[in-house]
Amino acid sequence: MNLRTAFGINLQRIRRQRGLSQEQLAARAGLARAYLSGAEAGRRNPTLDTIEAFAQVLEVDAAELLLKPSSGASELTS
Amino acid sequence: MNLRTAFGINLQRIRRQRGLSQEQLAARAGLARAYLSGAEAGRRNPTLDTIEAFAQVLEVDAAELLLKPSSGASELTS
Repeated sequence: MNLRTAFGINLQRIRRQRGLSQEQLAARAGLARAYLSGAEAGRRNPTLDTIEAFAQVLEVDAAELLLKPSSGASELTS
Repeated sequence: MNLRTAFGINLQRIRRQRGLSQEQLAARAGLARAYLSGAEAGRRNPTLDTIEAFAQVLEVDAAELLLKPSSGASELTS
């Protein structure tokens, strides 16, 4: 699993844990919802600044967004 | 400490632990030495793909490169 895919899985999982919609997370991070949707699907190549913006809104360490998801968590649904 | 600075400190620390010069790490990651030097100084905004390239060469989890360095490790020397 490459890092973009892992990042997308983590981003979606934590967003849902926080009870945030894609619209809410994207707006709070100052990004477009379509960008977030692509990032969660592993189709974006975000920079450190973007990763940091997501981490701050989600109140997690940025490193947590790059951890390899445990197996079985690899489905990418919107 | 912002994420760019933390990333730079971790990158430099782990590179030195591996006994690699900036030239060697940059070449193996397919990047210019000047880019790496800037990244270690916290002046770059690398993408996930670049972070992944460094992590693979350094044989660490990408998440480790984004951890907040323990206090006292914040000096940025080349």
